Amino acid sequence: VADRARTDVAALVRRGRDGDARAVARLISLVEDASPALREVSERLVEHTGNARVLGITGAPGVGKSTSTSALVTAMRATGRRVGVLAVDPSSPFSGGALLGDRVRMQDHAVDKGVYIRSMASRGHLGGLSWATPQAVRVLDAAGCDLVLVETVGVGQSEVDVAGLADTTLVLLAPGMGDGIQAAKAGILEIGDVYVVNKADRDGATQLARDLRGMLALAQRADGAWRPPIVKTVAVKGDGLDALVEAIDRHHDWAEESGELAGRRLRRARDEIEAIALTALRARFVDLHGHADLDRLAAEVIAGDTDPYAAADRVVATL
Amino acid sequence: VADRARTDVAALVRRGRDGDARAVARLISLVEDASPALREVSERLVEHTGNARVLGITGAPGVGKSTSTSALVTAMRATGRRVGVLAVDPSSPFSGGALLGDRVRMQDHAVDKGVYIRSMASRGHLGGLSWATPQAVRVLDAAGCDLVLVETVGVGQSEVDVAGLADTTLVLLAPGMGDGIQAAKAGILEIGDVYVVNKADRDGATQLARDLRGMLALAQRADGAWRPPIVKTVAVKGDGLDALVEAIDRHHDWAEESGELAGRRLRRARDEIEAIALTALRARFVDLHGHADLDRLAAEVIAGDTDPYAAADRVVATL
Repeated sequence: VADRARTDVAALVRRGRDGDARAVARLISLVEDASPALREVSERLVEHTGNARVLGITGAPGVGKSTSTSALVTAMRATGRRVGVLAVDPSSPFSGGALLGDRVRMQDHAVDKGVYIRSMASRGHLGGLSWATPQAVRVLDAAGCDLVLVETVGVGQSEVDVAGLADTTLVLLAPGMGDGIQAAKAGILEIGDVYVVNKADRDGATQLARDLRGMLALAQRADGAWRPPIVKTVAVKGDGLDALVEAIDRHHDWAEESGELAGRRLRRARDEIEAIALTALRARFVDLHGHADLDRLAAEVIAGDTDPYAAADRVVATL
Repeated sequence: VADRARTDVAALVRRGRDGDARAVARLISLVEDASPALREVSERLVEHTGNARVLGITGAPGVGKSTSTSALVTAMRATGRRVGVLAVDPSSPFSGGALLGDRVRMQDHAVDKGVYIRSMASRGHLGGLSWATPQAVRVLDAAGCDLVLVETVGVGQSEVDVAGLADTTLVLLAPGMGDGIQAAKAGILEIGDVYVVNKADRDGATQLARDLRGMLALAQRADGAWRPPIVKTVAVKGDGLDALVEAIDRHHDWAEESGELAGRRLRRARDEIEAIALTALRARFVDLHGHADLDRLAAEVIAGDTDPYAAADRVVATL
């Protein structure tokens, strides 16, 4: 704690803004570890943020997200943009750390000063985004990234989380990973701004794109609403990446002009404030009551002496 | 509202306990719709609950969860147990309703009075369990079900949710759905009490079971801890179901003797109370502040005038 208390956050932010990758790494660690310096980091970053575009990348395991992310970094770098990548892994069940396996390809970019790559564990949020992700995005934003890619390996909640976080959400699919109905089950049809059929050189890619187009066409969309395009790629060869960058930029332009971008960013900031406030409230009532008291109420519910709503009333009433 | 205010909850609970399926359906609807009668339902149910065993069934799309659930219902009915099924679907992206497709097989049990089946949408919790699920479990428990099966189609967050809700969690896998590493990514290795390799007559089933056994063996488990068995089934033919029922019962016996069951139920009741209390607090600060105030704070964060932690402090301070 003494060591952390000595952290010179102002200097780290200054160095991070000057392009010092180690300072950026340290800032993200402070955020990720919920360091006591977290609040100061947040405070010092805020005036430098709001420039980066946030791109969410999601899809089921095996569709080629890491390869696509890597190919997208290359394509975005070719347009001169500085790129940050946050690869959010579900916690490894055994080590608590991130599984690194398919991050290896990212090493293509290891010597490029215009790229910052970070794997984050999604501790305590299995399959979801870490609560620290929005703050890590702010660090990369403040460090001058024009684009922050947030790649989630999960399906389910993490997709929803990443869509909440991103200006533009890419949903990746690949042939042979399950049919259209399965896609609908996973809930991906409502969150994508751009759909990518990766591994488009494989059997079934055309059919998958057709099925997807059909399902997207069923969605009721208002006049002037964005109609998510479907882009075919072979990420491992870099095929289709220019079209993908173009689709992403087109969505961004639409979102900016239509007011959707401002609306999303407002919602995102509001959700973030609310989440922090609720965490603080929760900590407060654990302080007030302690787990022992909650356990006693829980035991009463189990015994049938009180119901969960009445028990919750008693918790809230004493706040 | 007038109609709902007239709901005679006491009579519904009485009829539900007498085995009236329509009364049970109505009670679950009251719970699911967050009807004004919800609190009274909760209050009147509590003394009749605590008898049912809750069995969670989860796995990736395509592993055969619905078929397995149906086969398990048949096997459990053969042992004379009354069975309730809650099939929790992610919301359909277009209709807001549950996708019914593969529920059709459940109609095998439609005329069996000892089986109660209900599809629930997981509204607002894409890929996760509906907040109403614990209350729906209570309804089925009070209605005299010996066993409540909660089947989730999602992966990711819903698996964690169902594990939190269940006395025993079944994780289903099937050959050809992705390798062991993919399984680890989805985080399933830490939540299963019993693993099921379904479609065990297909190529790759033996290898999948072997890989799974290897990965489970890597987990650090305390002495006396439960070692999750792996059961092979062909649910569509009913093969392996007796062994599955036996493994489930064995886990239940162990959980009861070891104190794990009491611990899980306590944790579950505590989580439920906490979630209801937090929802109430959240509603309270939306009442106090309204969305306009939160929007104003969010706009300040976006403009760089304040950071999210300072904004959250202001929300909490005025409570």
